[in-house]
Amino acid sequence: MIVANRIIYLDNAATTKVNPEVLDSFNKTKNLYFANPGSIHIPGQEASRLLEKAREQILNTLGVRDHELVFTSGATEANNLAIKGYALKHQNRGKHLITTNIEHPAVLEAFKQLEQYFGLEVTYLPVNKNGVVDVNDLKAAIRKDTILVSIMAVNNEVGSINPLHEIANLLKSYPLIAFHSDVTQGLGKIELPYNELDMFSFSGHKIHGLNSSGALIKRKKIELLPLLSGGGQENNLRSGTNDVALAVSLAKAIRLENSKIRENYVKISEIAAFLKNYIASRNDLYELNSFDNPYIINFSTLTKKASVVVEALSSRGIMVSSVSACHAKEEPISYVVKALGKSDNLAHNTVRVSLSYENSLDEIKEFISVLENIIKELK
Amino acid sequence: MIVANRIIYLDNAATTKVNPEVLDSFNKTKNLYFANPGSIHIPGQEASRLLEKAREQILNTLGVRDHELVFTSGATEANNLAIKGYALKHQNRGKHLITTNIEHPAVLEAFKQLEQYFGLEVTYLPVNKNGVVDVNDLKAAIRKDTILVSIMAVNNEVGSINPLHEIANLLKSYPLIAFHSDVTQGLGKIELPYNELDMFSFSGHKIHGLNSSGALIKRKKIELLPLLSGGGQENNLRSGTNDVALAVSLAKAIRLENSKIRENYVKISEIAAFLKNYIASRNDLYELNSFDNPYIINFSTLTKKASVVVEALSSRGIMVSSVSACHAKEEPISYVVKALGKSDNLAHNTVRVSLSYENSLDEIKEFISVLENIIKELK
Repeated sequence: MIVANRIIYLDNAATTKVNPEVLDSFNKTKNLYFANPGSIHIPGQEASRLLEKAREQILNTLGVRDHELVFTSGATEANNLAIKGYALKHQNRGKHLITTNIEHPAVLEAFKQLEQYFGLEVTYLPVNKNGVVDVNDLKAAIRKDTILVSIMAVNNEVGSINPLHEIANLLKSYPLIAFHSDVTQGLGKIELPYNELDMFSFSGHKIHGLNSSGALIKRKKIELLPLLSGGGQENNLRSGTNDVALAVSLAKAIRLENSKIRENYVKISEIAAFLKNYIASRNDLYELNSFDNPYIINFSTLTKKASVVVEALSSRGIMVSSVSACHAKEEPISYVVKALGKSDNLAHNTVRVSLSYENSLDEIKEFISVLENIIKELK
Repeated sequence: MIVANRIIYLDNAATTKVNPEVLDSFNKTKNLYFANPGSIHIPGQEASRLLEKAREQILNTLGVRDHELVFTSGATEANNLAIKGYALKHQNRGKHLITTNIEHPAVLEAFKQLEQYFGLEVTYLPVNKNGVVDVNDLKAAIRKDTILVSIMAVNNEVGSINPLHEIANLLKSYPLIAFHSDVTQGLGKIELPYNELDMFSFSGHKIHGLNSSGALIKRKKIELLPLLSGGGQENNLRSGTNDVALAVSLAKAIRLENSKIRENYVKISEIAAFLKNYIASRNDLYELNSFDNPYIINFSTLTKKASVVVEALSSRGIMVSSVSACHAKEEPISYVVKALGKSDNLAHNTVRVSLSYENSLDEIKEFISVLENIIKELK
C-alpha cells in the first residue's frame, strides 16, 4: 500500500485529503452529540441546536441572505435534488430546461433522465474553445416554456470558469426561470456571486471536508419535489436522520477554506503558472486545455497515451487524473475537452493536474521532471 | 450539556451510540485510504478494492447469494431507491403497489409521492392488534397489475415483527411482483430471511454504526431507475463519490452486531421482560402496545400526557421517545398505535423504550423507579 503522506497528490479535483481539524470536529461531535436531532429529549434538542448552528454558519460564511440550506450526501445528490426536484415540481409551468454540454455527470445524467423518463426537453449549450458558455447562446436558447437553467461555476475537468454574474443578470429578465449552479469546484477557491444564484450545490470532500457531506442552498421561496421522502427532515426537502457530525464538519471545512481563499489563490497561481509555462514550452509534447483557473491544469499528450502516462506517474508516486475520476472507468474520452473543439485523439489523451493549498512548487517541479522522463522512456 | 455517558439512553430505535471500534475503523480508513475509488491511480485502486471488500463482507455476513449491494446515505435513501426506483422503472408493467399502514415514513411518504405525482395506485394493508400484517390480506390485495410489495420486517414504533418468510412464500406464486422490506429495525437484532427478499434496506446508525451509512441489497436481476444520477457509481444505481470509510464502517458494524445476535437477544429479552411485567402489573397507569420483540417496548400512559412524561424523564437523565423520532416534530399522534386499533388518546400518549446491548437491568429498574415518581408527581 502506498501511504498517503509519501505521495505527491495532484488529484484534488477528484477528492482532497481531509483537513485534520475537520476530522477532529467530526469525531468530537460524533462522541458528544450522538442523539437523533429529531428526538424530543435533551440530547436530541442539543443535537438539533448544533445542526442548526452549522446550517447558519455555512449560510453566513457564504453571505447569502434569502437562502436556506438543505444538507445532502454530497454534490451529486444536491444537483439531482435541484434539477429533478425543480423540473418535476414545476413541469406544469413548462417543459424546457437549459444546461451546458460540459457539466459534471451528476448534472448531465439528471437532465438525461428527465428527458428519457419524464418527457422534459433539454437544450445543451456549447462552450467556446476556453470551455466557457456564451451568455448570448443562453439568451437565444430561452423559450417561453423554459423553467430552469443549470450552468456550472467551474468545470471539473479543465477548470474553465463560467460568467455566473452575467448569466444571473440576463436571467433577471426571466423571473419564471430558476438559475442553478453546481459550484463544487469553485467553492472556497474563487469568489462566486452566491446571492445571485437561485440554487447552488456543492460537496465537502472537494474542500478538505468529509465525503458524504454536501448541500443544496436555495432561495427560500423555491419549491422542490423531494427525491428522498420520509420523516420530513430538512424542511421536508430531504428526509433521513440528520448527520449532525457531518454537518458540523462541513461548516468547519467551508469556514477554513473560505478564510484562506485569497491566500491560497495566490500560492496556487504561482505553482500553476510554473506548470503552464512548462506545458506551453513543450508544444511538441503537450497541448494545454486549461486557461484562467490555477486549481485545474488539463493538458493533452501529443505523442503518448495519457492513460499510460498517468499509470507510469502513479507507479512513481505521483497521482493525477486522466479524464474525470467521476467516470474514469466508463468513459474513454473526455466529452469536456471534445466540447472545446479538440480532436478525439486529444480528448482521449488528457491529463488533469488539480491542486490544493497542500501542494508545493517543489512537488510540481518533481512532477515535471518525472513526466519528462516517462515521456522519454515510453515507446 | 448532558454528557453522553452519564445518561440512561433508552432511545436506541431512534439512533444508537457509535461503537468505538466502528468509529476507529472509519478514522483509520479515512486517513489511509483517502483517494477517490473512481480514480485510476494506485491510491484510487486501493480505495476501490477496500470498497469492494466491504461490499462483499456485508453480503457474506448476511448470507445472501443472488444479491448485490448499493451503498446509500441510509435507510431513507435505500427505501426511496427501492420503492420509487422500482415503481418508476416498471410502471409500464403495472401501476399497483402494496404496502402496510404502519411503515416508516421513509416508505409511506415514498408511496404517497408515487400516488400524488406519478399516477401509481397504492394499497395500504392494515395490521392486527399486535401490529402484524395478515398474509391473507396481502393475498386479497394482489391485482394483475401489482408490481411491488413493501412490508417492513420490524416496526420502528411498537416493534411488531412481520412474517417475511410467509409473505415471500406467497409471493413465489407471483413472479412479476418484487418484494421489498425495510429491515432497519431487525438487522443485527433478529434472524431474518434475507435470501427470500428481492430487496431490503437498512442504515448503519441503528446498529451502532455511523450516520449516513446504509444500503439497499437487491437481487442482481432487479432493475431500478436511479434517484441519484451521475458518474455511474454503484453499478449506475446510485451515483456520487463513494465513501470508502463509511462503507468499511458499515461492514464492521454489521459484523459486530451479527456475531452477537443471539447473545444480545437473550440479554435484552431479560431486561424487556422485566419492564413488560412492570407495565402489565400497573394497568391502572399504562397500556402495553408491544408484544414479541424485546428491543422495542411501547406503552401508552393512561393518566398523564406522554410528552410531559418523556420530558420529565429527560430532565432526570433518562432518554426515551414519544412517537417516532423520525417525525417527532410534526406528528402529534402515533399512526402506528392507531393502526393497532387503539383510541386517539392512547395513540397520542405513547412512550417508546428501545433497547441496545449497552443497556442493563439496573438501568431499567432506575427507569421504572423514576417513571413511577414522575407519574405520582405530575398533576
